Amino acid sequence: MSLESMIKDMTKAGKEASRELRKVSRAGKDAALRLTAEKLMQREKAILQENEKDLALAKEQGMSSALLDRLALDAKTLQSMAEALGEVAALPDPVGEVTGMWKRPNGLQVGRVRIPLGVIGFIYESRPNVTVDAASLCLKAGNAVILKGGSEAIRSNLILGQILGEALKETGLPAAAIQVIPTTEREATRILLQQEQEVDVIIPRGGEGLIRFVTDHSRIPVLRHYKGVCHVYVDEFADLAMAAEICFNAKVQRPAVCNSMETMLVHERVAETFLPSMLKQFRDAGVEIRGCLKTLALMPEAKPAEPSDWPAEFLDLILAVRVVKGLDEALDHIETYSSNHTEAIVTNNYDRAQRFLEEVNSSVVLVNASTRFNDGNQLGLGAEIGINTSKLHAFGPMGLAELTTQKFIVYGSGQIRT
Amino acid sequence: MSLESMIKDMTKAGKEASRELRKVSRAGKDAALRLTAEKLMQREKAILQENEKDLALAKEQGMSSALLDRLALDAKTLQSMAEALGEVAALPDPVGEVTGMWKRPNGLQVGRVRIPLGVIGFIYESRPNVTVDAASLCLKAGNAVILKGGSEAIRSNLILGQILGEALKETGLPAAAIQVIPTTEREATRILLQQEQEVDVIIPRGGEGLIRFVTDHSRIPVLRHYKGVCHVYVDEFADLAMAAEICFNAKVQRPAVCNSMETMLVHERVAETFLPSMLKQFRDAGVEIRGCLKTLALMPEAKPAEPSDWPAEFLDLILAVRVVKGLDEALDHIETYSSNHTEAIVTNNYDRAQRFLEEVNSSVVLVNASTRFNDGNQLGLGAEIGINTSKLHAFGPMGLAELTTQKFIVYGSGQIRT
Repeated sequence: MSLESMIKDMTKAGKEASRELRKVSRAGKDAALRLTAEKLMQREKAILQENEKDLALAKEQGMSSALLDRLALDAKTLQSMAEALGEVAALPDPVGEVTGMWKRPNGLQVGRVRIPLGVIGFIYESRPNVTVDAASLCLKAGNAVILKGGSEAIRSNLILGQILGEALKETGLPAAAIQVIPTTEREATRILLQQEQEVDVIIPRGGEGLIRFVTDHSRIPVLRHYKGVCHVYVDEFADLAMAAEICFNAKVQRPAVCNSMETMLVHERVAETFLPSMLKQFRDAGVEIRGCLKTLALMPEAKPAEPSDWPAEFLDLILAVRVVKGLDEALDHIETYSSNHTEAIVTNNYDRAQRFLEEVNSSVVLVNASTRFNDGNQLGLGAEIGINTSKLHAFGPMGLAELTTQKFIVYGSGQIRT
Repeated sequence: MSLESMIKDMTKAGKEASRELRKVSRAGKDAALRLTAEKLMQREKAILQENEKDLALAKEQGMSSALLDRLALDAKTLQSMAEALGEVAALPDPVGEVTGMWKRPNGLQVGRVRIPLGVIGFIYESRPNVTVDAASLCLKAGNAVILKGGSEAIRSNLILGQILGEALKETGLPAAAIQVIPTTEREATRILLQQEQEVDVIIPRGGEGLIRFVTDHSRIPVLRHYKGVCHVYVDEFADLAMAAEICFNAKVQRPAVCNSMETMLVHERVAETFLPSMLKQFRDAGVEIRGCLKTLALMPEAKPAEPSDWPAEFLDLILAVRVVKGLDEALDHIETYSSNHTEAIVTNNYDRAQRFLEEVNSSVVLVNASTRFNDGNQLGLGAEIGINTSKLHAFGPMGLAELTTQKFIVYGSGQIRT
């Protein structure tokens, strides 16, 4: 069978499965998720064996130890995957929620009710635990999903997909509700991205290269963010101790993720008070500073910032620092360089806080809190399948509700249009 | 200047304007809409002169009288365009609406607030009044819009765009918030559809050919419906007098629109009672019937339905009729042939009504009401820019809220992630 007919068969089976899933109750979906969790524990040995094969090949091909870490599964990661499945099962079912209902002057009762999106194509890199995470969220929201993971994780993903399929079958759900594409060829992704008759949305998760490839080749709508160039602006009216805590957390706690701070903007009136100790704290934590001229005056050993540093997503212990004249200059800087992902202000001035919240056009805008809170779990969505910085459908972190759409239902009593 | 640099200049100006629009108050936007309404009345003579030129050229080129009707403006259409502007001005501003706010265990207060989408590309055919309608809705929701109308309406559209631009300028808003592409070349549309850096969404409105062209060539997300193949299912437990009124209204009141009925499904137990008088009523109204074998047995002079009639959008006084064994067969038929636009059931059986509402996967599903109610105004959205049958962003009629997205705002007090 050709690659193309294989992918087409999978998307058709996915569409069939999505029709069946529309009728499945919450109990049915939760049972499949809980059974998957049990199976992950029971099948630990087999899963780790397959993962071992992925790891051996990756080592042979010279994969870096950081990437090997991401690829590796062990008893503890399996345990936390199982726990995550239990958490998704415990979340309310978004499907069937009536988000509003009203009466028209002619007596029509009009409501909106959440329904699944249909079939989701999920394209990702490295971590095999994402396979189970993403599949569980798609299933809980009533969607069929077709998963294409990184080639280095193929054997791990396949056995996880097999276990998910068994749990579906044993709980009476269609096995094609969750399908892992069984090849490492990138051409498979390209073909998947053309199946707009069957697939309703594509969600890619990974580096900017993967995301660009997906958006460039997709005929299907894509929910994605390219990068997170997140800013914290320390205002002249900031509590400087709070500002230091927030900035340190935003940069250092997990520098390799999209919601970490990449550029710190500091009001010139507090630069001399705030920056020297802040920059020392960063230096002690191994953070490389790339500063504007005013920053360099306060920390001569810092590197001068290049123009390319302002729009950069370092994903590393590197920070661009700029001293600004005030809120307006900070807003201009953000307007120019922001990736519309996450921006924060630290201030105790009411008016500046409100202006920042209103004027910054990013998916998450915070006052006096770390950028690291741009996350579905942290913001209270219960879960997260990814973050979208295109403005359509969902802007920001996407939870279960964002994996649904809404149809209108109308209760009439014989109304016609005149 | 080349066509490409012209379109690029327009999309860049649109993006600049959309930044300014984010800060404009409701009063500012409404003032521009009301001034446009005044100007439409004051400039009647000039507008009708330009429209006359479009009409003269269209006649020369042999345009049908139905299409000439659509193209023609007169004092009355200008009056109703002005009234529609007043109605949009009277609608609440969707921008700034906080749709939810909640507190997290760590004290973070998280909310979602509506913001404009940004820049909208609106591509349409024929009717020049759509220029003003669409522009007013985009503006009210805080978006810049770039309009590309039908080539036959170019002079009418240009003078309307000029008047809109004057009203914007005179009320202190950026004139580039509303721009009409000043050429009839289709290549202009193709270039517009490539400007994904500046344009956030494309909304096409017109025949299936136009919509296919737009979706095939767009790099920007498209909100659209290809066609409306709408069904009414008359159940065995229907009030047959009500069913006759609803079916007649759904087919005959305005057959050329997307929410008119194209296929009528009738439960076999009521076919003999219901169909003869219903079909006679349709015949008297000039409706051509294309029936299944059981329908033909009751109305021998009807045409037999071809397989191509079931998925057809006739947009005319033509109706496909099929007698079905019951709700299951009706649901199967709809699942197979529906365009996910609008479907209705007529029944007094509670359980069948509920099953139909739950199982039909269309953007608007009705019980005991005409399919003609799939319309933003009729359903209470206040206005409508179009209907979307792709599931992303908005499913069904799109009003002002659907021309916005939502960002997260977070009020903190020094929270960091641990």
